[in-house]
Amino acid sequence: MKITDRKTDIVSISAKLFKEKGYSAVTMRDIAQALEIKAASLYNHIKSKQEILGLIVVGIAEEYTFTIRTIEISEATSIQKIENVIQLHIDITVKNPDALASLNNDWMHLPKAELSYFLQMREEYEDIFRRIVKKGIVDGEIKNLNSEVIIFSILSTIRTLYLWYGKKKEFSAATLKSNLSKVLLEGIV
Amino acid sequence: MKITDRKTDIVSISAKLFKEKGYSAVTMRDIAQALEIKAASLYNHIKSKQEILGLIVVGIAEEYTFTIRTIEISEATSIQKIENVIQLHIDITVKNPDALASLNNDWMHLPKAELSYFLQMREEYEDIFRRIVKKGIVDGEIKNLNSEVIIFSILSTIRTLYLWYGKKKEFSAATLKSNLSKVLLEGIV
Repeated sequence: MKITDRKTDIVSISAKLFKEKGYSAVTMRDIAQALEIKAASLYNHIKSKQEILGLIVVGIAEEYTFTIRTIEISEATSIQKIENVIQLHIDITVKNPDALASLNNDWMHLPKAELSYFLQMREEYEDIFRRIVKKGIVDGEIKNLNSEVIIFSILSTIRTLYLWYGKKKEFSAATLKSNLSKVLLEGIV
Repeated sequence: MKITDRKTDIVSISAKLFKEKGYSAVTMRDIAQALEIKAASLYNHIKSKQEILGLIVVGIAEEYTFTIRTIEISEATSIQKIENVIQLHIDITVKNPDALASLNNDWMHLPKAELSYFLQMREEYEDIFRRIVKKGIVDGEIKNLNSEVIIFSILSTIRTLYLWYGKKKEFSAATLKSNLSKVLLEGIV
């Protein structure tokens, strides 16, 4: 999805406002004010708050989905693929925590067509992750434990990372990258 | 906290309603209706919706806090203590998923005194968990990885278990118990 520079500003400022005040409480006027432009001028770039939400949520969801597709068909081992998925989540979290808050809290407010596109991407994402884990178990690379428990355990951690990372500003992306994969893949014992 | 049998019914029906409709949307009348009693009769047992929320949230939070205190001072190794904490979360999740939804979504609506008691318990809980992990690292039982990453990784999984478990009714508590500790403690490689 190609968006102009002005739209990039609108999207990032809006994501910040949605996170701070809650999507429902934010008006187009608030967004214009935060951008220091007139409301009329904002409407030259964007039709509605829902359109902005679509740009935020669909943008991030496409980044996840397109990347995990590439990861699945790569030559890497299953464990390396899972490690790449973990790194992908860390990268997006570090780069764009506000947009992730919107993706997690506000997706249900998407316009109908984008909502169904979003839900379809989310399902595809989980299906790909599930296939990677199951193949790893079949190939003997991953321990023969319940695959759904493995999937839940890893996804619940990497999907809530933005909540925790937002409070821990002292953490470098490098510390996170070198530690989180180890904890999730090799355990702590 | 000792509560009468009638209160137990009120609490469990209310937790279910709060989860289904959202705390703010539920009225005392809805609760009376679900219990098949008159609203006036409900007020004989309980003064307000907030009082019910207090019983739900404080009840669960005390169960977590009192149990983790016992776990910390037990003779077990650090790894066994963490395993006991994981089992505690599974037990409460399996027994009471509705109350956990309330604890996670509605705690901010608690009356002031109970809110501060709840926040204090939540902090104590995290402090105890942190001490267990750090002691395990110092004693060489747990790998020398970043302790905050370990704590986040385990807590994010066991705290969101109720969301996932609610959708996976085919899972027995036994499958969960035997798999989740292994995945979290020993990893998947």
